[in-house]
Amino acid sequence: MIDVQRQADDRMIDIDKVGVKDIRYPITVLDRAKGQQRTVASVNMYVDLPHRYKGTHMSRFIEILSEYRHDISPQNLGRILEAMKRRLEAESAHMELTFPYFIEKLAPVSGTPSLMEYTCRFIGSLNDKGQDIMVEVRVPITTLCPCSKEISQYGAHNQRGEVRLSVRFVRFIWIEEIIRLVEESCSCEVFSLLKRSDEKHVTESAYDNPMFVEDVVREIARKIEADDNVTWFSVAAENFESIHKHSAYAFIERKRKPRLAEA
Amino acid sequence: MIDVQRQADDRMIDIDKVGVKDIRYPITVLDRAKGQQRTVASVNMYVDLPHRYKGTHMSRFIEILSEYRHDISPQNLGRILEAMKRRLEAESAHMELTFPYFIEKLAPVSGTPSLMEYTCRFIGSLNDKGQDIMVEVRVPITTLCPCSKEISQYGAHNQRGEVRLSVRFVRFIWIEEIIRLVEESCSCEVFSLLKRSDEKHVTESAYDNPMFVEDVVREIARKIEADDNVTWFSVAAENFESIHKHSAYAFIERKRKPRLAEA
Amino acid sequence: MIDVQRQADDRMIDIDKVGVKDIRYPITVLDRAKGQQRTVASVNMYVDLPHRYKGTHMSRFIEILSEYRHDISPQNLGRILEAMKRRLEAESAHMELTFPYFIEKLAPVSGTPSLMEYTCRFIGSLNDKGQDIMVEVRVPITTLCPCSKEISQYGAHNQRGEVRLSVRFVRFIWIEEIIRLVEESCSCEVFSLLKRSDEKHVTESAYDNPMFVEDVVREIARKIEADDNVTWFSVAAENFESIHKHSAYAFIERKRKPRLAEA
Amino acid sequence: MIDVQRQADDRMIDIDKVGVKDIRYPITVLDRAKGQQRTVASVNMYVDLPHRYKGTHMSRFIEILSEYRHDISPQNLGRILEAMKRRLEAESAHMELTFPYFIEKLAPVSGTPSLMEYTCRFIGSLNDKGQDIMVEVRVPITTLCPCSKEISQYGAHNQRGEVRLSVRFVRFIWIEEIIRLVEESCSCEVFSLLKRSDEKHVTESAYDNPMFVEDVVREIARKIEADDNVTWFSVAAENFESIHKHSAYAFIERKRKPRLAEA
Repeated sequence: MIDVQRQADDRMIDIDKVGVKDIRYPITVLDRAKGQQRTVASVNMYVDLPHRYKGTHMSRFIEILSEYRHDISPQNLGRILEAMKRRLEAESAHMELTFPYFIEKLAPVSGTPSLMEYTCRFIGSLNDKGQDIMVEVRVPITTLCPCSKEISQYGAHNQRGEVRLSVRFVRFIWIEEIIRLVEESCSCEVFSLLKRSDEKHVTESAYDNPMFVEDVVREIARKIEADDNVTWFSVAAENFESIHKHSAYAFIERKRKPRLAEA
Repeated sequence: MIDVQRQADDRMIDIDKVGVKDIRYPITVLDRAKGQQRTVASVNMYVDLPHRYKGTHMSRFIEILSEYRHDISPQNLGRILEAMKRRLEAESAHMELTFPYFIEKLAPVSGTPSLMEYTCRFIGSLNDKGQDIMVEVRVPITTLCPCSKEISQYGAHNQRGEVRLSVRFVRFIWIEEIIRLVEESCSCEVFSLLKRSDEKHVTESAYDNPMFVEDVVREIARKIEADDNVTWFSVAAENFESIHKHSAYAFIERKRKPRLAEA
Repeated sequence: MIDVQRQADDRMIDIDKVGVKDIRYPITVLDRAKGQQRTVASVNMYVDLPHRYKGTHMSRFIEILSEYRHDISPQNLGRILEAMKRRLEAESAHMELTFPYFIEKLAPVSGTPSLMEYTCRFIGSLNDKGQDIMVEVRVPITTLCPCSKEISQYGAHNQRGEVRLSVRFVRFIWIEEIIRLVEESCSCEVFSLLKRSDEKHVTESAYDNPMFVEDVVREIARKIEADDNVTWFSVAAENFESIHKHSAYAFIERKRKPRLAEA
Repeated sequence: MIDVQRQADDRMIDIDKVGVKDIRYPITVLDRAKGQQRTVASVNMYVDLPHRYKGTHMSRFIEILSEYRHDISPQNLGRILEAMKRRLEAESAHMELTFPYFIEKLAPVSGTPSLMEYTCRFIGSLNDKGQDIMVEVRVPITTLCPCSKEISQYGAHNQRGEVRLSVRFVRFIWIEEIIRLVEESCSCEVFSLLKRSDEKHVTESAYDNPMFVEDVVREIARKIEADDNVTWFSVAAENFESIHKHSAYAFIERKRKPRLAEA
């Protein structure tokens, strides 16, 4: 049967990315507490396409995904990208995996365990300049408004927020570490299960720690800038305002100044 | 050209609903303050299909929508359903229009005006038993947790919530009336624009009116049951909990007891 | 600490459903081929609330979900509903779990294996009238338009569609059986991975089996009505039309006539 | 009342973007055929925040949006950004408006009119380097697979696709022009309403013009590269494959070579 995709194309236009998008697949990722965690990812896989070829071979992406799906991690992404480049005969490869990740948390006073869900994403690229891996985590948080607390005789509006933190790094980094950093940089962290004693605790903690979205991204930026392992980050905080139908939003992106280049 | 849709089908199976789904179209609806409001609806239009026909004629739905789109209201829905029944040669017709609706609100202390968005839906059905029209509104609200307030030394967790109220009625009812009823049945109503004096006001109001989702649906049910004009309603309240990643939810559905059947 | 939820409420209004909504949790479900499958569900859990109580105890839903999450199936739903009723001291309980489910399929000619995702839902209710369990599956399909094929000199527009089939039944039913029934009732079934020989096959198969959404729901209805095990079903077919931006839609709902009451 | 937002912050961290996100507001945009079109936008508005300030003043964004909402266009975006910069006392401003836009199209053979919806986006930024305006349009298309057509005895799988085309330009550009360019670069354009004669036409047209996502982005790139008015573009084509549950995807981004800088 004729290979239409390998036919010549004379428009002289290279394509930056071509491949499969929004395929859902079961994957297994590293879990600090349990070794491994099975979850379901939404996956995009692309390669470049030189101007001389008419099309790419879409089925090969799924073959590669099927082969590697049992061992997905920031470290292994490079091997998958290599396989994509090789088997699609491409110069560059790009992959994104977005998946729910669960961590057992203990309620702050009662100690009752429950699972919290965090949306995670691994993004990897490989081209002639080398490999680029990024890890992104979405962490739900509570924020309590400093202005509302200050100007009101009692109470203070608060709400669920979400932080999206993306990092590039030198050495391996656990999803759990990134989440912890965020949860320590908001008015209060969020739980799936709270007993009455816990609810009292989170209510009072939030009131004791009023923070704007501006404060949240600054707190996180301050901590990450002190971490030699992170070479780049972006952090977005969004408040699903309890007093509005829209969100408050703040965003910082930084290449870390290489402080370690001393001596 | 042959009319495939009108060909005979011998499976002897009537189809309850067939038509077009999720078409977006600009429409004009009634506006209590300004007479008319232009908005954009997502529309579903269905008729039944007797077992003897193979298919319906999809293009006619769009023709009818194009004709009637300048004057959409609960009262006019009957005429559109009649047109659907007639032109699709059907026994029954069903239509759903979902659209954003804007109302100018004044901030509670400063009086600053801004527009609030509410998602509205008109649902109409027509068959041999007659016509059935339903109006549904989604209203964002603030709720403040009574338990959190009671057990905490200071503060109380609060959040954005949403009420979905659906009503069937005897006489015409304004979207604005339904929204008002909901906004008077929560810890505090929501605004697009609040100055500092307003923010103090909504913060303290919410703290003064702690309500569970259970309280919200009961308040609304209590008020609607007292309204002779409403023959049926369902009300759902959902809290986008500030201390959890999931929602708290409560729901009541009632056929109103016909109190008016007196002497 | 005071139990605010157990305080009295004097509005005399029973609440139909109250609980937690849209919580994501890892669950394990039955898998015909492999025994078990781990996936991630979006879960709603509700009970009724008698008029005399102010609120329900939200944390208990999460405790129950945590306990039972390792063994989720239509048969076990009854036990979870019993636990909800008992521990929330309610008269009725309702639960909905929606999750991606994966089945290994072989490409039709090359036999190449890959995983297909289907969105499944278990819905269970328990009240004084007994227990009601429903299984729902969303199955992607290909449909090719009979009218387009008939009137065109060559070609025929086709598109991805989706069937949502819900069933109530007497004896246990596998998700795999429901999916198979749907995949045998469309222009062609859908795969994650197709080699060139497979692509030729699915293209020609679809062209050989032109079907409207009307045909799809009728085919499925015809087959299910012949199955003694099914007591009720609803089937919706939606075409993401390749020639429109909106969908074509058809829907049938039936209580099966009890043919087995013979003898 | 104390202005908490204007309080000093000593963390020495500038914030790149802070403001309001996902607010829905009615706006009026330019319409080539009718002069003006009213629609509903989802809006994000951000400014930078110097490190010395604790927070921004969120209500001012809504005031500005309310003032300028009646006259939204790529040309006017600069004035809104200036107002944001001035009234928020910022160094930079950023705004994104996403809205449905409707164009009346005539069916290709019968000439029957109907409205097609396109999702449009205006993105504007203003900082010390100047102003940057981008227009983005999402256009639904039909694509018919060249490989499927080639290898099959009859038929060819086709599907709805979507092109997202973003452009930066020198002189004013109509949304209508961008849409036209895309609709002339696919297997067949999409309509809301097609009579039988039209359906025959689009079916045969698509079969006569088989195109991969790769072909679609190349065709568009080729045409845009020939247009002196465009200084930058990115184009993504996505096929909602009729034979898969996932999408095929292709993407090209280019700064146009300044061909006009001659003599």
